[in-house]
Amino acid sequence: MPQTCHVALIGQKFMGRAHSNAWAQVGHFFDLPLLPERSLICARDAAELRDFAARWGWQRTTTDWREVAADDTIDLVDIGTPNDMHREQAVAMLEAGKHVACEKPLAGTLDDARVMAQAAKRSKRSKTFVWFNYRRCPALALAHRLVQQGKLGTIYHVRATYLQSWGGPNVPLIWRFQRKVAGSGAHGDLNAHIVDLARFLTGDEIVEVHGAVARTFIRERALPGGGGGGKIAGQKAGVRKGKSDVDDAVLFLASFRGGAVASFEATRVAAGHQNRNTIELNGSQGSLRFDFEDMNVLHYHEGFDTSATSGWTRIMCTAAEHHPYAANWWPDAHVLGYEHGFINMAADVLRVLGGKRPEVPLPDFADAYETQRVLEAALLAAKERRAVKLSEVK
Amino acid sequence: MPQTCHVALIGQKFMGRAHSNAWAQVGHFFDLPLLPERSLICARDAAELRDFAARWGWQRTTTDWREVAADDTIDLVDIGTPNDMHREQAVAMLEAGKHVACEKPLAGTLDDARVMAQAAKRSKRSKTFVWFNYRRCPALALAHRLVQQGKLGTIYHVRATYLQSWGGPNVPLIWRFQRKVAGSGAHGDLNAHIVDLARFLTGDEIVEVHGAVARTFIRERALPGGGGGGKIAGQKAGVRKGKSDVDDAVLFLASFRGGAVASFEATRVAAGHQNRNTIELNGSQGSLRFDFEDMNVLHYHEGFDTSATSGWTRIMCTAAEHHPYAANWWPDAHVLGYEHGFINMAADVLRVLGGKRPEVPLPDFADAYETQRVLEAALLAAKERRAVKLSEVK
Amino acid sequence: MPQTCHVALIGQKFMGRAHSNAWAQVGHFFDLPLLPERSLICARDAAELRDFAARWGWQRTTTDWREVAADDTIDLVDIGTPNDMHREQAVAMLEAGKHVACEKPLAGTLDDARVMAQAAKRSKRSKTFVWFNYRRCPALALAHRLVQQGKLGTIYHVRATYLQSWGGPNVPLIWRFQRKVAGSGAHGDLNAHIVDLARFLTGDEIVEVHGAVARTFIRERALPGGGGGGKIAGQKAGVRKGKSDVDDAVLFLASFRGGAVASFEATRVAAGHQNRNTIELNGSQGSLRFDFEDMNVLHYHEGFDTSATSGWTRIMCTAAEHHPYAANWWPDAHVLGYEHGFINMAADVLRVLGGKRPEVPLPDFADAYETQRVLEAALLAAKERRAVKLSEVK
Amino acid sequence: MPQTCHVALIGQKFMGRAHSNAWAQVGHFFDLPLLPERSLICARDAAELRDFAARWGWQRTTTDWREVAADDTIDLVDIGTPNDMHREQAVAMLEAGKHVACEKPLAGTLDDARVMAQAAKRSKRSKTFVWFNYRRCPALALAHRLVQQGKLGTIYHVRATYLQSWGGPNVPLIWRFQRKVAGSGAHGDLNAHIVDLARFLTGDEIVEVHGAVARTFIRERALPGGGGGGKIAGQKAGVRKGKSDVDDAVLFLASFRGGAVASFEATRVAAGHQNRNTIELNGSQGSLRFDFEDMNVLHYHEGFDTSATSGWTRIMCTAAEHHPYAANWWPDAHVLGYEHGFINMAADVLRVLGGKRPEVPLPDFADAYETQRVLEAALLAAKERRAVKLSEVK
Repeated sequence: MPQTCHVALIGQKFMGRAHSNAWAQVGHFFDLPLLPERSLICARDAAELRDFAARWGWQRTTTDWREVAADDTIDLVDIGTPNDMHREQAVAMLEAGKHVACEKPLAGTLDDARVMAQAAKRSKRSKTFVWFNYRRCPALALAHRLVQQGKLGTIYHVRATYLQSWGGPNVPLIWRFQRKVAGSGAHGDLNAHIVDLARFLTGDEIVEVHGAVARTFIRERALPGGGGGGKIAGQKAGVRKGKSDVDDAVLFLASFRGGAVASFEATRVAAGHQNRNTIELNGSQGSLRFDFEDMNVLHYHEGFDTSATSGWTRIMCTAAEHHPYAANWWPDAHVLGYEHGFINMAADVLRVLGGKRPEVPLPDFADAYETQRVLEAALLAAKERRAVKLSEVK
Repeated sequence: MPQTCHVALIGQKFMGRAHSNAWAQVGHFFDLPLLPERSLICARDAAELRDFAARWGWQRTTTDWREVAADDTIDLVDIGTPNDMHREQAVAMLEAGKHVACEKPLAGTLDDARVMAQAAKRSKRSKTFVWFNYRRCPALALAHRLVQQGKLGTIYHVRATYLQSWGGPNVPLIWRFQRKVAGSGAHGDLNAHIVDLARFLTGDEIVEVHGAVARTFIRERALPGGGGGGKIAGQKAGVRKGKSDVDDAVLFLASFRGGAVASFEATRVAAGHQNRNTIELNGSQGSLRFDFEDMNVLHYHEGFDTSATSGWTRIMCTAAEHHPYAANWWPDAHVLGYEHGFINMAADVLRVLGGKRPEVPLPDFADAYETQRVLEAALLAAKERRAVKLSEVK
Repeated sequence: MPQTCHVALIGQKFMGRAHSNAWAQVGHFFDLPLLPERSLICARDAAELRDFAARWGWQRTTTDWREVAADDTIDLVDIGTPNDMHREQAVAMLEAGKHVACEKPLAGTLDDARVMAQAAKRSKRSKTFVWFNYRRCPALALAHRLVQQGKLGTIYHVRATYLQSWGGPNVPLIWRFQRKVAGSGAHGDLNAHIVDLARFLTGDEIVEVHGAVARTFIRERALPGGGGGGKIAGQKAGVRKGKSDVDDAVLFLASFRGGAVASFEATRVAAGHQNRNTIELNGSQGSLRFDFEDMNVLHYHEGFDTSATSGWTRIMCTAAEHHPYAANWWPDAHVLGYEHGFINMAADVLRVLGGKRPEVPLPDFADAYETQRVLEAALLAAKERRAVKLSEVK
Repeated sequence: MPQTCHVALIGQKFMGRAHSNAWAQVGHFFDLPLLPERSLICARDAAELRDFAARWGWQRTTTDWREVAADDTIDLVDIGTPNDMHREQAVAMLEAGKHVACEKPLAGTLDDARVMAQAAKRSKRSKTFVWFNYRRCPALALAHRLVQQGKLGTIYHVRATYLQSWGGPNVPLIWRFQRKVAGSGAHGDLNAHIVDLARFLTGDEIVEVHGAVARTFIRERALPGGGGGGKIAGQKAGVRKGKSDVDDAVLFLASFRGGAVASFEATRVAAGHQNRNTIELNGSQGSLRFDFEDMNVLHYHEGFDTSATSGWTRIMCTAAEHHPYAANWWPDAHVLGYEHGFINMAADVLRVLGGKRPEVPLPDFADAYETQRVLEAALLAAKERRAVKLSEVK
């Protein structure tokens, strides 16, 4: 008989929804040592919160996150708030002895991330997790496993992009384009994912950033709401504009300790790409390639030298007997979607809390702090127009 | 405030799981006039049933499906049993005044299907639905809409395949390979889907089958359990075999009333294809193409004559503002999977029961009976080695 | 030192150009026992012929094909004329003791084809060849070789299409749409290729056509030149039209002696497809797939049952050490095009005439006659609305 | 009547063959103001040269390139020698008043390139050309045209890779891995192409390199010939090794004057990629994408904001009425290969020499010198671990 894990969730926006779904679904598909109970949900807007809790089956609600820390019945706190809230909330929960699963990136600043990693280290009882959900796409979990088995040999190249296009020139100046609110643009949001994946897949650490560029292509955007109240009639350009001061794109080059060179690119203005999270590894024994827009598939090139029938193999990662997580879902090629990465992660979190092993490694705060250092090194390289050793960033 | 629809489900295997998930998830993502309550689940194995009900949140259980018919609190009966059970159960539920959602194909035989369609017609109060889930893949719902808008002009070609490979030569003689248990092989299981899709997308009816072939490639299979009881120890070929008497593949050619010619192929022995449900339409104004193994995508060729930039456009059917069902799910290219077709269908069933319109047309028993007539005509054509008019099959 | 093969070519249209290029290029890239000399070219239009001969380096010209037969210096006659000319010309050349390479299909009618095959059989000295150029795409030659090596096991399925779109509703009534001139439509032109490929790849013969449909979608087409002279002013439909009486598309189903079932489809009205010559084979040990629009690539699925890394492998068939013909061309993935199939075939013809073995089997008249019988059986099946055994067609 | 252009070619290796083919083929397919005569070929190995000249129809041969300069009958000298020969030969030919078509990269060093560009500028009568052949793939010529027409709006991103895998760990220490012979590794060979393409497609110039990394992954390679002479029989590690001192890969980030950010990557050790020359542009009005391994295709995303049917369109760039160069070749989707880029370039060179316009711009020495400056800036950035302004490199 599985025991119960009492979960509290903070946040009810996009991630609140993705996490609620994960906790609701995980017990339907996995046999686990612990089963989650959606005990408590916390968010600021009381009216919205009531509807949200009803829809998703959360038993209780609160608008004060400190009540979550104070609630002795809660085992695991799931933090799905904006980045600038992570530090205060996570540290409080750790000090209250709770396990914490925090949205990525770990924090809005490297300082916050360091404090969180230190708090996690101090806490003997608590386990920490960071929602780098893509690790648990079956195709990427398989990729991790193949690299661990030595199928790629020595890694030479890592090539990762996260291309989106929601930030085009016609999008108004919402909060995401204001540094004081959002912290950063594409870098913290998207490069965080692909740096985590590169580290997860290679099992190696970045030691140097060779160069970087951050760019704001669209420096002025229409003010939301249209404005224009005080405009002179007949003026063609009757839209008031404001300045965007976050990056639309950040690119950087890096090296891993083991010698691999890597390129990373995150952008919100790549027309035609919506959620193009891609990563490729080339090694002395073969190559692997993934594109989230075809997420059930992993491309694998076995061997370096070729035979008459070698080439890129398109692996549909849905076979119960062969592929990570697949046995918990549907028959072959009855494909999975975005949300399944979160559900698979919820399963692994509950396995770990129940004393079992996860399907593939879970990132904790210490691990996510390493990703944050890489992001910081890239920003420094862009700002100072020079290469930066990771040892400079602590 | 939405009202409640009390659902009873019969069946707890693959489809029982897919349907349970649909009823559990639909309220999380859709705003509906009716919300489903998982009231009663029925299956033969009481022990399994208890676990299944607990896992999926069904409130009550029974091992006797007649109790479902007798239960006045049930509004909608969802039938997920083998094909040879559909007729008796569906007719009983209709006579008890319940709405019925039945798994596809409508029945194991044309006679059964006719009786069911007639029962549905007689019942004034009840609505009927058939779980042709693929209609509600967003990409196929979009395809339907584009054809309805006249974007393809006159349809010339329909080209549909459903290729699987689970029935290879190493699979033992399970019940699915025995006609007396399974009824048929790939034909009823897979051609049913693509005939339904062809009718759904074109909005047209098949009037003739020009020719057909049914083939059992693997006529002998190892008996399950290994047999070999009476075998001499150490003998290498110690496997006893039995006869498979269902089709491994059925192909046929047909014409639609509007003049289009169509090819259909279903197989369980196409190595490398796992759930390759594909359909393509070519018309006088353009073409459409779909492949379930990349289910979030619809390929569209606009126009017949070309310009410098014309070609096949790969549409990622996940845009909230543009694509069917997309607004209920995740942001652009945060892709959906197999199970979402069922959830989208559950939403449309509840909309219809609540007096609203479905996103795209739902098949009822009368509609599914037309699909069954086409399948029957193909079998007749294969058997008699001749073309068959649909008017011959009633 | 290679000897010389004196070639005469009849025809200077599309195929005249493709063949001239083959004879001009083959010596540049292949080391051969015989080198071709472009000795004599024959066509009806003397003015065009002069320019064509100058451009392509043909040494002499004639407008009378009987002069070709009478010319004792000619070793090989290459026939690139319309189908209804093949019989008379080929028989005359064979009787004159020349080798003959004839464009496909072998003839416009089965009777003609039979006479040609018989003439070839009677001729002891002459070798015959038919320009089924696609056999010599490296990817298809590789496919042939893999099947011969038993890599696919028993073949279950052959799935072939040849989809084009040049015959759309806006194309006027050119001679290709008139039966008395063209003989047939898509069937003789396109199905000829894919039936040849299916026989070449499987190494097996078709024994039955299960059903067929031939369709003329666009029955009326504008008369070329626009006409409209005699029309009443103000009439909207001011374009004079005429009847098209050839097929726009022919589909049929067939079985091979070895048990494989096959589908064939040829069409000129599939919007978005320009030269979509595709073929797929599924066997008990694996599958192969080819699409001419990506002609340097062969897709291969090794094995029937799968492992963690199995899937479709995309083979770039350009490796000198591994792939047919590749060593004669450019480095890896410095890809080939349409014309290279003809050049590769010219090389194999010259090898055979010089006493060497071709890279893969060349079709002769006897072989092409078998393809023609299959096409005839399909027409009979379409006309009589029934299955047809190949033994009925001789 | 077209006049004659007397061509002399220096070099008979890979490029000698590709260029000979271009001069042999161009007159077959293009109507030109000048027709090339293969007058003179020059190479060092007299025996090989004789065979090569015979095979390719070169009228005369010489082993002394200075004789080419001295030959008054020669109009155009085509230089296909190693990079370190370009300067001396090109300058001599220009001073002799000849037109020069030189293989890329322009030279082995920036100094050489500058001298060549200056010599070209001084020469009033001579025209210069550099064989950046990929510009004349129809798909890339179309891309250029679409950008020129403003279809992409402001360019935000350029993303270019040239991935090969012939330089794997099992390749011995041939001259290409020795700096004193080869000059550089992947950088000069492959990055030269994609920097040229990026400049050609955008019509813009790079102003800064933000960072770069050059890497030699395989530092020791077996000596060619196997060595091992003095080895003790039976020793397992009996292979003598030497040092490779050229780059296996170079990556860099850059910005264009117009604001676009760009990434470039060239490598010889990307398992599974053979000639993966890819480039993508994302702009404010749409995107374009090309991959040489599917060279007949251009992918185009029209518009930034999307409609129900927008997506990436796969354009088969073979339509006579729409696409550059297509009218000179075969019908739609009768695809072209690698060598056609050279033939198309030969046509444009002859057009320009005959006073006509090329289909798309041809690079001359001044243009190629700009590409060389970018490559130099990248090397400097890698060496000094800092950003480099192009104004620093002259």
